Order: sequence, then C-alpha cells, then structure tokens
Amino acid sequence: MAENVSTHPYLPQGLKLPCRYVENDKSIQELLGVFFGLTALVMVSTWIYSGSSAKVKLSTVQRLTVCWFVLCGCIHLILEGWFSVFHNSIAGDQSFLSQLWKEYSKADSRYVSADTFTVVMETVTTWLEGPGCLFIAMGYVNNSPNRYVLQLLVSTGQLYGTVLYIGNEVKDGFVHGRMWDPLYFWFYFVVINSPWVILPTLLMVQSCGKMVQAQAQMDKAALVKGKKKKN
Amino acid sequence: MAENVSTHPYLPQGLKLPCRYVENDKSIQELLGVFFGLTALVMVSTWIYSGSSAKVKLSTVQRLTVCWFVLCGCIHLILEGWFSVFHNSIAGDQSFLSQLWKEYSKADSRYVSADTFTVVMETVTTWLEGPGCLFIAMGYVNNSPNRYVLQLLVSTGQLYGTVLYIGNEVKDGFVHGRMWDPLYFWFYFVVINSPWVILPTLLMVQSCGKMVQAQAQMDKAALVKGKKKKN
Repeated sequence: MAENVSTHPYLPQGLKLPCRYVENDKSIQELLGVFFGLTALVMVSTWIYSGSSAKVKLSTVQRLTVCWFVLCGCIHLILEGWFSVFHNSIAGDQSFLSQLWKEYSKADSRYVSADTFTVVMETVTTWLEGPGCLFIAMGYVNNSPNRYVLQLLVSTGQLYGTVLYIGNEVKDGFVHGRMWDPLYFWFYFVVINSPWVILPTLLMVQSCGKMVQAQAQMDKAALVKGKKKKN
Repeated sequence: MAENVSTHPYLPQGLKLPCRYVENDKSIQELLGVFFGLTALVMVSTWIYSGSSAKVKLSTVQRLTVCWFVLCGCIHLILEGWFSVFHNSIAGDQSFLSQLWKEYSKADSRYVSADTFTVVMETVTTWLEGPGCLFIAMGYVNNSPNRYVLQLLVSTGQLYGTVLYIGNEVKDGFVHGRMWDPLYFWFYFVVINSPWVILPTLLMVQSCGKMVQAQAQMDKAALVKGKKKKN
C-alpha cells in the first residue's frame, strides 16, 4: 500500500499515500476557476428556476435555501462522491476532480491519504445527504410538508459531519495541513468549510422553529377537541 | 506518549497507549453486574416516575421512550463523559468507570488508546446529546411541543455517530478487536451497540411522521386562510 512517502507535497512528512503520487498538470487558477464558475452557474440557474417553477411563490430566503441545497446536492454527489469511490487512486490520477482533491489536500492531506474517518464520513455525506439535499429543494418547489423535517435531518448530518471533520483535525494538532498559511489554512480549510458550519446551523434553527410551531398548533387543536368531547 | 506497547491485552499488536497500562482488579462479572444493575434501576425508576408525574397520560410507547432517553442521558453524561474527559489516563486508572472502559476496549481498543475520532465523537455525544436526551424526557413528561424536534435532533446525532463509529471499524478491517469472538465481538461490539442503531432509527421515523403530519395541518390551515382572504 505505502508508496511515494517522500516525493509528495503533503503533510505530515512521511505520510503514506495509497498509490504512487503524480503531480497536477492543471494550475490552481484553472482548477478553482472551473469549480467556482460551475458553483456560480448552479446557483444562478437554480435561482432563476425557483422563481418561475415553484407551486407557491417562494420568498427570497426560500429561493436562496433552494439554491444552497441544489449546490450542496451537486457538491455531495459529484465532488465528494468522486472521493467516496476513488479515494485510493486520487493521488495518482489526473482527472479534473482528482486534481481538485490533490490541490485541496495541500490544506488537508486526509483526502489524498484516504484517511478512514474521512472516507466513511464522505460516503455517508455522498449517498445520504446528497440525494437528501435535492429532495429538500424539490420539497420547497412543490410546497411539500416534509421540507422542514428533511432540512433538519440533512442539516444535522452536515453540521455533525463538519464538526467531527474539523474536531478531529483540531485534536490531531492540524498535522495534515499548513497551519496559518493564507491560502491553504485560511482559504481552503477555514473559508471553504465555514458555510457547512454556518448555514446548517441557521437552517436547523429555522426548521426547529417551524416544526415546534406546527406541533404546538396540533397539540392545541387536540386539546380543544378533547375538551369539546368532554363537554 | 507511547508506553507499554507489548504488555497489554489490546489489538492490534504493538498498539500504543497514552499511558502505562494497569490490569483491572475487578472481575467481568462485577463490572457488568454493576453496569447492567444500574441500567435496570434507571429504567425501572423512570418507568414508575413517568406513570405518575406526567402532565398528560403517557402511552406505553411514550413511557418506554422516556426510559430510553433517561438511560441514554445517564450513559452519555456519566460513562461516555468519563471517557471524554479522562481518555488519556483510562489505561492506567483503577476507578470503576475506567475499569469498565478497559474491559470494553478488549472489543474495541480505540477507547483505551484514545483514538482521535472516538474522542471527538464521544465528546459531542456527551456534551450535546447527553443533556439533549434528558430534555427530551422532560419534554414528554411536560407535553412540550419541542419533544419530537429534539428527539429527531438527538436521534440523528446518535445514529450518525454510531454509523461512523462502526463504519470506521469496518473500513479498518476490525483491527481493534477480536473478530467473531462470542464475548468481545458479538456481545460487546454488536449486541451492546445495536440499540444505538435500531432505536434512533425507529425514533427518527416516528418524529418525522409526527412532524410531517403537523406541518401538513399547518400548511392546510394557511391555504384555507389564504382562500378565505381572497373571497
């Protein structure tokens, strides 16, 4: 299994990769440009679609929520799905998605070394949360009564996964990346991951509020019904 | 950090423990007897309490749910809380809870070796899910409208934590325990952990059903209100 211990740019030094490392032939600009370009494309087209095709008129917050979940669905299923399936060969592969992971791994080598927790967590994220995100988006567009429950389930999964992902790295003393580096630590590790802490938290709070409200209404109705029966 | 590599009973061979290993002086019978005795005590006393002190009359399923969450609260806060705080010294400690962890670690050495993921996951379990379980039990007893939302949040956390905990061990090829051993694998690892897969799943399904029903009622009421306004 262990190959190319010394001739790769990943930390900690001596890290064993599951296959022979091949250096990226695409530049950072190209990789990030395509990634953020596609991100913008997904967001804009979902924004337009959610304004015209929803069963009920969606508010701005609801349309932004739909955009978030469609983007998450795409990232979970495509980018993280690629890692979930090909984690053992990414280090030596030159496809676009593998090169993207090799670039991100400079901030967190657990992706290029196929770290156990990272593989298992990403597998759950891909195959459960990925489709879940798309179902939530559909739930908003179709005004389905399961939208807030699904939102709570998926957002809890996303937040818990991210907390464990960051927590493990904190506990390990940030040994898998370049701590305090402006690009690798601050931009890749902190900025890119922070939406998966902030937005699931906000969406969980919103879901909980909506569902407690609905449950309180139902409990009140049941109480009134019970009293009427007694009279 | 690394001590007592060869003179402990844990797998894989050569596993490094965070401190010097001291063999248990309590027998398995004593450890399991006290643990399951206290478990029974918590269940029976909660069962009695939930029958007499609830604001509304609870059904059998609701009373059993209260028992489950009180038990979980105690296990998360006390047993897993102990591990969350003292994971680096358990291997050499002779307190009752440390001896219980040293015994369980024969089935899964990640507890005695203070494995990163296990520590982080148990820390989240202790400090978020532990109090959460007790709030849910109180929610049932007080007929609070937040009971199903909290139940969904905590059960999702419990299930996700357990899935990652088992998933990591499967991915690692069960190297931290004695695979197929009747006591260590089947009883400790499979039987003792299985309630945290089965019950959170059932409770999640129940919560989702209740909340979708409540949301559907609220959406219907909003629709009727909207139509009345139009007329």
